Amino acid sequence: MDPYTIHLNGNFPSVLDVHVNISGRSSTLGKNKGRKARWSVKPSDMSNKTFNPIRNIVDGMKVKPNPNKTMISLSIGDPTVFGNLPTDPEVTQAMKDALDSGKYNGYAPSIGYLSSREEVASYYHCPEAPLEAKDVILTSGCSQAIELCLAVLANPGQNILVPRPGFSLYRTLAESMGIEVKLYNLLPEKSWEIDLKQLESLVDEKTACIIVNNPSNPCGSVFSKSHLQKILAVAARQCVPILADEIYGDMVFSDPKFEPLATLSNNVPILSCGGLAKRWLVPGWRLGWILIHDRRDIFGNEIRDGLVKLSQRILGPCTIVQGALKSILRRTPQEFYHNTLSFLKSNADLCYGALAAIPGLRPVRPSGAMYLMVGIEMEHFPEFENDVEFTERLLAEQSVHCLPATCFEYPNFFRVVITVPEVMMLEACSRIQEFCEQHYHCAEGSQEECDK
Amino acid sequence: MDPYTIHLNGNFPSVLDVHVNISGRSSTLGKNKGRKARWSVKPSDMSNKTFNPIRNIVDGMKVKPNPNKTMISLSIGDPTVFGNLPTDPEVTQAMKDALDSGKYNGYAPSIGYLSSREEVASYYHCPEAPLEAKDVILTSGCSQAIELCLAVLANPGQNILVPRPGFSLYRTLAESMGIEVKLYNLLPEKSWEIDLKQLESLVDEKTACIIVNNPSNPCGSVFSKSHLQKILAVAARQCVPILADEIYGDMVFSDPKFEPLATLSNNVPILSCGGLAKRWLVPGWRLGWILIHDRRDIFGNEIRDGLVKLSQRILGPCTIVQGALKSILRRTPQEFYHNTLSFLKSNADLCYGALAAIPGLRPVRPSGAMYLMVGIEMEHFPEFENDVEFTERLLAEQSVHCLPATCFEYPNFFRVVITVPEVMMLEACSRIQEFCEQHYHCAEGSQEECDK
Repeated sequence: MDPYTIHLNGNFPSVLDVHVNISGRSSTLGKNKGRKARWSVKPSDMSNKTFNPIRNIVDGMKVKPNPNKTMISLSIGDPTVFGNLPTDPEVTQAMKDALDSGKYNGYAPSIGYLSSREEVASYYHCPEAPLEAKDVILTSGCSQAIELCLAVLANPGQNILVPRPGFSLYRTLAESMGIEVKLYNLLPEKSWEIDLKQLESLVDEKTACIIVNNPSNPCGSVFSKSHLQKILAVAARQCVPILADEIYGDMVFSDPKFEPLATLSNNVPILSCGGLAKRWLVPGWRLGWILIHDRRDIFGNEIRDGLVKLSQRILGPCTIVQGALKSILRRTPQEFYHNTLSFLKSNADLCYGALAAIPGLRPVRPSGAMYLMVGIEMEHFPEFENDVEFTERLLAEQSVHCLPATCFEYPNFFRVVITVPEVMMLEACSRIQEFCEQHYHCAEGSQEECDK
Repeated sequence: MDPYTIHLNGNFPSVLDVHVNISGRSSTLGKNKGRKARWSVKPSDMSNKTFNPIRNIVDGMKVKPNPNKTMISLSIGDPTVFGNLPTDPEVTQAMKDALDSGKYNGYAPSIGYLSSREEVASYYHCPEAPLEAKDVILTSGCSQAIELCLAVLANPGQNILVPRPGFSLYRTLAESMGIEVKLYNLLPEKSWEIDLKQLESLVDEKTACIIVNNPSNPCGSVFSKSHLQKILAVAARQCVPILADEIYGDMVFSDPKFEPLATLSNNVPILSCGGLAKRWLVPGWRLGWILIHDRRDIFGNEIRDGLVKLSQRILGPCTIVQGALKSILRRTPQEFYHNTLSFLKSNADLCYGALAAIPGLRPVRPSGAMYLMVGIEMEHFPEFENDVEFTERLLAEQSVHCLPATCFEYPNFFRVVITVPEVMMLEACSRIQEFCEQHYHCAEGSQEECDK
């Protein structure tokens, strides 16, 4: 019998196990040098280490919303969900033009079309932080931009410094690659500025980079120019490069003004990550970029070449979006950006104002991005052990869903997404107020009603 | 002076180096526990290990084409390059409809929209290999599909078995992740069937999977049903799962018929990778998929969950293409696929016929995909040491560019891409003939002209 034939599919018994006598002659024909004879397919260490904490926490919240109240989700960091923030018609038209040209269906260079990279360089170029096409790498979303940056800068066993509270993807990506994460604190009482001493104290010989996220998810904070300069001073003193996550760059509706980190330093090499996702309101399109700022040639060719090599693994973003980039960047009217910011400011003021008036809550006023963080005075809500329980009960009783800031490594806060339609925001704030009134206790054990 | 301030940009000297006395007190303010005080940013081991052999060989061929002859490139595995193989208008329209709907701009689930996955499942489902949406993961191109499969199945230090000749990306991805590659031989004299004994002999306790690429790049070969069954017999006997790279699935223009590997086995768990790239002629759009075939529950939930977790790193493909998938799969007319195959067959016959008549060349007739491999009787071309030199000189003298099959780990062959316009193919074959005639030697040292 031909050892290489196995009879299949119905007429013959299928062979599931093959018994091999390890110590002696194999009972099957053919060589089998100690190969295990049973099926045992295990997922890799990498997949085991790839962990999405938000998914974990949210899936663990096994509560159902209150069926008598329409669900209001203030949890999803996706501005498109309710349809109130459509992208600009120029953006959609740019895609159609790219499709019709027939020129953008083939393989692009793995780092992106030269012409598209030229457009991005030109768009972000300024005298303080000049850019050419060679300084730009296009990626499948800002997530892949961050992934490539971490993958080129750090080896397993090294560490990166990451803000707390902060976007959980940094940890997900780092830990999946065996890179350790050290958390530096943001200070809510200082509009979420970085605790610079504590940041600097974390740096050691294995620190590969510092991630600076400005404007911030989940805080909605924007760093002042002077604070950014202080951050750069730490990096310069400690000789650590910076990965600047600036996906919310230019999305600022209050002071301070947004300053691209690279415009403030000549000394510190910076990989600035961004993309179309938030400012152009098309996160699903997966178009991101890395801007390489290296005016002291500290990265040199090695880091650049490393990024190019890594980009060859899966070859970059959808070519139609690449082909549309020029028109998207040049033709989207200022009015579009202005309207988005107007709306965000209005919702931010509304939300902040409403929540600030609620005893037991301490919102922190945002200046940009799409979020605000709300502190919970847990001592006044003794029924709840932490932010996770608070937000769970809020969902169960009021059908309002906010993410507990434990998702961002910052317990006893919750994050509100401010992109929802105004009428939803009003209703949600009203329900949050009702919820807090029902559960608020003035002081430990006190049963008396409190004055507002 | 505030230790956290550094003066920048013009008026003050910038601080480049910070001198720290390691053995004693730091000369700067603030803690600095032995932190190196000089800039030294090195690219990671992963980036150093990420290697594209084709790029290396092609960039190393520092010859210029003959300026007197128009360049004909038969080297690029991109069917769109010359514009003679446009995608179908239904495909383009499907994208425009997805754009206009406004429904596909936000974040999709990281594994892809449920409805899009349902469409792919439905498209490939058959009784022998049933599929549901839960068995489908959408990826940024077939490259990312292969990447995710390797990343979930193998740990650093394990090995995968890969065809030789074969697509170089398998090695690029594997080695970048610290996974070893072992090469199993394809036999040109048997239409590139696998040397099954040699394949089986490579399996050891660290073997994580076997990659089977059918139809084949670079060979253009298609495995018969019985050969596929024999491959499965090896995998079943050795208890090794298969990653089936079927990106050229259904792109067959001669016998044998294409058989999806999963339809032939119940026992061996298979991850089948595919996508829109080749069959729909839009490789740049980066839409791929993994089809999980696991009817004996050998992968179980662990592998599936592992794939889901890994997909959360960079969140999958462009949502516009996902939104267009349903229409692309359902509305692309059969005529479109038929015309592509007609054209490929015609070019394959033309190319094979022309090259088979050239002394010194031994083309292997393809049955599918977009390529054919041509053996070089190196003993008749004593001026050239190997296929790299042969193709270099061909480029320099005749401005015809073919990839030396060293790029695919198979020296003394070269690969021809058969998607080019017919007139280019004719001209290229004519020039190859002239080149071979000029360099052919009958026998070692002989100066006599040979009969054809």
